[in-house]
Amino acid sequence: MKKACVISIFLFTFSIANAQSQKEDMRRIYDEALTSGQSYPMLEYLSLNIGHRLSGSPQAAAAVEYTREKMESFGFDKVYLQEVMAPHWIRGEKEVGRMINSSTFGTKDLHVIALGNSVGTGAGGILAEIIEVQNFEELETLGKEKLKGKIVFFNRPMDPKLIQTGQAYGNTGSQRTRGASRAAKYGAIGVVSRSLTLAMDDVPHTGTLVYDEDFPKIPAVAVSTVGAELLSRAIAQNDEMKFYMETHCEMLPDVLSYNVIGEIKGSEFPEEIIAVGGHLDSWDVGDGSHDDGAGCVQSIEVLRIFKALDIRPKRTLRAVMFMNEENGLRGGKEYARVAKEKGEKHIAAIESDAGGFTPRGFGIKSSEEVLSKIQGWSDLFEPYDIRKLVKGYGGADINPLQDQGTVLIGFMPDTQRYFDYHHSASDTFDKVNKRELELGAAAMASLIYLIDQNGL
Amino acid sequence: MKKACVISIFLFTFSIANAQSQKEDMRRIYDEALTSGQSYPMLEYLSLNIGHRLSGSPQAAAAVEYTREKMESFGFDKVYLQEVMAPHWIRGEKEVGRMINSSTFGTKDLHVIALGNSVGTGAGGILAEIIEVQNFEELETLGKEKLKGKIVFFNRPMDPKLIQTGQAYGNTGSQRTRGASRAAKYGAIGVVSRSLTLAMDDVPHTGTLVYDEDFPKIPAVAVSTVGAELLSRAIAQNDEMKFYMETHCEMLPDVLSYNVIGEIKGSEFPEEIIAVGGHLDSWDVGDGSHDDGAGCVQSIEVLRIFKALDIRPKRTLRAVMFMNEENGLRGGKEYARVAKEKGEKHIAAIESDAGGFTPRGFGIKSSEEVLSKIQGWSDLFEPYDIRKLVKGYGGADINPLQDQGTVLIGFMPDTQRYFDYHHSASDTFDKVNKRELELGAAAMASLIYLIDQNGL
Repeated sequence: MKKACVISIFLFTFSIANAQSQKEDMRRIYDEALTSGQSYPMLEYLSLNIGHRLSGSPQAAAAVEYTREKMESFGFDKVYLQEVMAPHWIRGEKEVGRMINSSTFGTKDLHVIALGNSVGTGAGGILAEIIEVQNFEELETLGKEKLKGKIVFFNRPMDPKLIQTGQAYGNTGSQRTRGASRAAKYGAIGVVSRSLTLAMDDVPHTGTLVYDEDFPKIPAVAVSTVGAELLSRAIAQNDEMKFYMETHCEMLPDVLSYNVIGEIKGSEFPEEIIAVGGHLDSWDVGDGSHDDGAGCVQSIEVLRIFKALDIRPKRTLRAVMFMNEENGLRGGKEYARVAKEKGEKHIAAIESDAGGFTPRGFGIKSSEEVLSKIQGWSDLFEPYDIRKLVKGYGGADINPLQDQGTVLIGFMPDTQRYFDYHHSASDTFDKVNKRELELGAAAMASLIYLIDQNGL
Repeated sequence: MKKACVISIFLFTFSIANAQSQKEDMRRIYDEALTSGQSYPMLEYLSLNIGHRLSGSPQAAAAVEYTREKMESFGFDKVYLQEVMAPHWIRGEKEVGRMINSSTFGTKDLHVIALGNSVGTGAGGILAEIIEVQNFEELETLGKEKLKGKIVFFNRPMDPKLIQTGQAYGNTGSQRTRGASRAAKYGAIGVVSRSLTLAMDDVPHTGTLVYDEDFPKIPAVAVSTVGAELLSRAIAQNDEMKFYMETHCEMLPDVLSYNVIGEIKGSEFPEEIIAVGGHLDSWDVGDGSHDDGAGCVQSIEVLRIFKALDIRPKRTLRAVMFMNEENGLRGGKEYARVAKEKGEKHIAAIESDAGGFTPRGFGIKSSEEVLSKIQGWSDLFEPYDIRKLVKGYGGADINPLQDQGTVLIGFMPDTQRYFDYHHSASDTFDKVNKRELELGAAAMASLIYLIDQNGL
């Protein structure tokens, strides 16, 4: 009994001392990120020197090389490339989207942009009557008779009433991803899709579409929200309004590309891996600063902070720059496949792919027990205004790890401005606030530190 | 006993029904703000049609008129002006700040801006050796011998390690507000003060200075952070570097101005007042969109939402546009004085003066009991990501109400970007995100709704 008591007191004292040192280490992590942080200059280089990084493009290759070099320069234990065959879709010449003889506007060009993976119309373009719908049910109601040979205009807006903009995006996304094939099913020959953003402006937002192999592949463009409003009014004024669209995009053969991986080896449990990542590819407009340059540089910064503070992790930490999240997810799939093949054990994976905004918390996909354990760290996070440790979704790139029992964690920054920039020419470096980006890196480093120290 | 039981059940049922209807009303408040909100178009008018609104200026008078008309147009029960004699400081011609014969830069102009309420140098300017200090203790160490006839350069930066930028601002603020008189005490003839911002850019930030009547009033300017870094390096390279400053600002006689007040009368306890406000004046650079156009339009929007949803408050709600927060606080003081004179009972006052950013919560200055009561509403706020209901400071304009026992509440938006814009030419309408502004108005309306329904 006496012995048990001594042990208890020892453990209790140890645990208090432990909690205190973890609290102090978190403060050191934040201080490092906020006073000597490298995430912002890395993002500046990625965004302004390299620019946008569409899968298969020379810029994507340059980004692979830059992040590899950067991680080597920080002295990570191991930095290596993992081969990924990436799709190589190209936009070609600037798109045209034109209302023909609208009652109010006459013939007027709208700002459009081809959806990613879309086939092109070719130089001849397509000219057809345009019909507006809000959803797939309306297609069914209209049927082949009304839709055959027509261009379908999907005009469902994102719902401004939802507080989390990602939820509004999710609810509306299918018109972009599936709209072309759903319209082709009824004989439509082209699609115009309202941009997925809550901003009312004249900047179109692209994003991937996925063709259903059962139907003809028809070309699809996104129109800006202001353009969508104009188009909708023009259609309402003129029953048989025509639309002309011309796109030059095409899918080329796959290209050899890479996931870029940096690693710090664990001192006690090197076989247990904690991965943190973002995706290196972006769309070919803007410079992909928020989506997802931010997530990449934050992931590298997490490991750099451990090195800078000389915190030797117990477990192996990995920063992963995934390739081709946007139009194929090849990198995320390949990373999980290789991990499985090698019998690697990922205890947790954290993804940052919601922009470099002020951190609010983390969404956790795990057992209730693990969730409770992480929520037990709330008091440590509160001084840093991290107040959401909630059930959630990890992220597209880490999701393929889930059948290996990995705890998946999605970094949750503030969501209000994300879709103003997302997949558009507005996603540029000047939209990223230095402190917000750094605070995100610090929050991620802190969570990884706590998982590393305490296990899951 | 039976009767008590019946009453208990009745009260319990009533309380559940009540909680449910309050939850639903909060949802209606948010829906109204996010789909039919008027805060953003009001701010657009205030910022782009009227512009900045320095106390005593024609623009301040136009803003009084605009907000009065706006509140009348929304059909508030009573809209009126409350007289305030406002200081009338003017900037005059553009300032000059010039390093003379620095080793590296030669003679070079820096971006400077006179501090508010500062005396001017006049057309002749002042030319003197410039000495850098970090704080008032260094002045004491240097003493009269070293400082007499010199220009003092206060170069203490805001601390980036503090998570709440307002705290960093508070810790550094005295070099701007008190620096001139502290330097004059030792015979200095002018002051250059590093801008109070965490952004490293070339935009100087003004703000009020307060003279101590015991010492001569000497002129003071703020220099941008980039300019401060240059100046510091130039001084380090050249022991006796000179600086030339020229400002044309002056204080004119007080001007008759106004607080603008709109009111919806309470149906049950009309004598109990809940006030919500921002300040209508701004500095004379940028257009004062975040500081504090946002707080003004949000306050009007709170009352408009009650009208639009036909929610008759039990208590009297007041939207108050305070005049002259920036360089005198005359409006806040006068409002409290009149309230006291009339024997009005303010049960709570909420101030929005930290920018139109995503809401994080509220800082509450009250008894522990009231704080607990408000914290009891956490579950109602959580779906809207309002997760901070904490002890805090109300705000400068409502602070004079505190000796009347009023519960003072400060609206807390995210703080990371605020000081990038604050008191500078960068505080312009394009820096305000529509949804963030609307969410702030909805959060304020919700808290006022709950206070109104449940008392304090």
